[in-house]
Amino acid sequence: MRIDRKRLETSIEELGRIGETPRGGLTRLALTDEDRRGRDRMVEWMRAAGLRVSVDRMGNIFGERAGTAALPPVMMGSHVDSVPTGGKYDGQLGVLCALEAIRTLNDHDTRTRHPVTLVIFTNEEGARFQPAMIASGVMAGKIALEDAYNARDRDGIRLVDELERIGYLGPEPCAPRPFRAYLELHIEQGPNLEAEGLSVGVVEGIVAISWSRLTIHGVQDHAGPTPMRIRHDALVAAAEVVTGVRGIARQLGGDLVTTVGSLTVAPNIVNAIPGRVALSIDMRDPTDAVLDRARPLLDAVVREACEREGVRYELEHYWRVPYTPFDPDVVATVERAARSTGAGYRRILSGAGHDAQYMAAIGPVGMIFVPSRDGRSHCEEEFTPIDDIEHGANTLLRTALDLAELRA
Amino acid sequence: MRIDRKRLETSIEELGRIGETPRGGLTRLALTDEDRRGRDRMVEWMRAAGLRVSVDRMGNIFGERAGTAALPPVMMGSHVDSVPTGGKYDGQLGVLCALEAIRTLNDHDTRTRHPVTLVIFTNEEGARFQPAMIASGVMAGKIALEDAYNARDRDGIRLVDELERIGYLGPEPCAPRPFRAYLELHIEQGPNLEAEGLSVGVVEGIVAISWSRLTIHGVQDHAGPTPMRIRHDALVAAAEVVTGVRGIARQLGGDLVTTVGSLTVAPNIVNAIPGRVALSIDMRDPTDAVLDRARPLLDAVVREACEREGVRYELEHYWRVPYTPFDPDVVATVERAARSTGAGYRRILSGAGHDAQYMAAIGPVGMIFVPSRDGRSHCEEEFTPIDDIEHGANTLLRTALDLAELRA
Repeated sequence: MRIDRKRLETSIEELGRIGETPRGGLTRLALTDEDRRGRDRMVEWMRAAGLRVSVDRMGNIFGERAGTAALPPVMMGSHVDSVPTGGKYDGQLGVLCALEAIRTLNDHDTRTRHPVTLVIFTNEEGARFQPAMIASGVMAGKIALEDAYNARDRDGIRLVDELERIGYLGPEPCAPRPFRAYLELHIEQGPNLEAEGLSVGVVEGIVAISWSRLTIHGVQDHAGPTPMRIRHDALVAAAEVVTGVRGIARQLGGDLVTTVGSLTVAPNIVNAIPGRVALSIDMRDPTDAVLDRARPLLDAVVREACEREGVRYELEHYWRVPYTPFDPDVVATVERAARSTGAGYRRILSGAGHDAQYMAAIGPVGMIFVPSRDGRSHCEEEFTPIDDIEHGANTLLRTALDLAELRA
Repeated sequence: MRIDRKRLETSIEELGRIGETPRGGLTRLALTDEDRRGRDRMVEWMRAAGLRVSVDRMGNIFGERAGTAALPPVMMGSHVDSVPTGGKYDGQLGVLCALEAIRTLNDHDTRTRHPVTLVIFTNEEGARFQPAMIASGVMAGKIALEDAYNARDRDGIRLVDELERIGYLGPEPCAPRPFRAYLELHIEQGPNLEAEGLSVGVVEGIVAISWSRLTIHGVQDHAGPTPMRIRHDALVAAAEVVTGVRGIARQLGGDLVTTVGSLTVAPNIVNAIPGRVALSIDMRDPTDAVLDRARPLLDAVVREACEREGVRYELEHYWRVPYTPFDPDVVATVERAARSTGAGYRRILSGAGHDAQYMAAIGPVGMIFVPSRDGRSHCEEEFTPIDDIEHGANTLLRTALDLAELRA
């Protein structure tokens, strides 16, 4: 049994037009009108594929294909929200390959013992509402529903109000539910598969992630008549933090990655000494112990930069996910499936967080990676060749079939 | 003849309520509804003081008190726009002290040979539309009306459209006009007068100013799976520029001040490597030669930072004003007036640009400074004691009287 490459390609193109940017990327921030239109299109396709669609209190969408026995489902999915000026493969590909797998089961009138359920998670990216993967976090019991509801975007709009506004504040409880396995196909977002000429990554787990936020309070003043000797410039301190954060990765080496991705200046005009800077620090490593060593280095970088400039600051380490190993049996099943498709594959770690990370806390999880051209993602240039997507989708289909068990 | 301290104080409080921030500062960006309300209030007061009000094509407001002879006017004024979360003294004080001087002339039925004209310039701050002092620049023939009209704010809104929207696109030509003198009272925005316990600064001129803008193009990518070795992070390069700009002031020393006041990151989210950063560089010195030496240092800082990170950039030096000496006779007149009020005073240079700078290109100009508490301005804590304001306003009144010549 193999997926229909042409049908999958068409779906990728169609869904990719919702929130498309002029340069061929995607801006479909969580719970915006574009997200709603993306969701509506998916629900339409899910119903057309005969799935029973339901929505939970976090706006997660489920589409169930019944099994022949009263057993927990094999779940497959990802997300349809994107970062600003992101690409058309991140998230969307996992959802559409899962849909294509189900369509293929329909084509062959295949009955499975376990139900097969397509799932679309809300606000995976964390680009609009923090933290990322907030809805799988609630489902896994790691984030309180109340806190998720009160997450606010930059304009102060609450997540729950946007859920309601776009019509995806569902009635189902958002809580741990039994599943046979959760499978997520995703782009690698790194350079390794492409560099080695492979189509499929059999993901063994997700690196440990630490997110911090720093606010620096300088003394806002006029850039002209204020002598250098009396300045307390929040941006000068922030610049040293950015350089220092880069330095932590250089110092500890290995696979540690450190990033200041967001930085906002107030009042942010040419002729005022910046009075306040807020910035984010993202650190990741396959080993929890390395992140444990990076944290105090970050504390020191911030303390020293701010003391040097004579500015106050607040540093908050507000999110930490430990290294998440996936279920060895599911990983082995994915590997067998990859081999059976004839694809080049290898085992790999994920450097990015995914809903699979939270799902791993409540059941057996596996992921399938496909390559990212030049290792790039979260940008308009994001791209995966259709040959690789086909291998990935077939791997997903076969893994799901294996786990859902063909009716005897 | 002395100004009415109580009346001046009341006017400062009243005008300060338009655009007042919760923490007692002021946000009255050029050509916003707040600016319109501030202008409307001023026009109302000017008419009540018997002035003939006219508006030119850049929205500059003139209120003329007739003289007894057909002679060019003594002009006095400043601006009523503010920076975001700025203070209640910058600009507003110069306009209200000029109004108070005219009200005082009225109180005494004083007739002068030259007319006395109150002027309010549009968009002095440059916080909303660049460059700063755009309307006096047009009046002095240094900026083309066309270019000023097409200046856009961050939302892409054109200056001319906002002028029209708020009802201040006037019919008078905005062009050089003869004047006996232009006088501007302003807060010092630096620490010197307060430190020396003086009430009045007799301003001899304005330092040379250079504004540049830098855009850095990195490679936007995911902060997780992208190894450090393949990154081209626009913010890391920008951070080195910020540090380097600070270093230029340290290197050249003296009175040179260098500031990165504005810095904007795209896409500006926690988990994306910044793909693009735009930032501003402001450099000022009393001596043109020092700025001439600072420019190539800035070029080198930017080039080296961007080469190190492997990122492209565009650096544009888009605005340069040379050192502006004021008219020696007007400065001497201000000094005599300051002495006659009994105020402690000294001669001083302005580190900030003012409309007086452009006006000096087309006629005799002088400025009067009053102290800034802790040297602070462009912030909500901006403050000048009323005793100093009174000395400053009396100095302005007496200078204007001297130059406008009492009817014999």
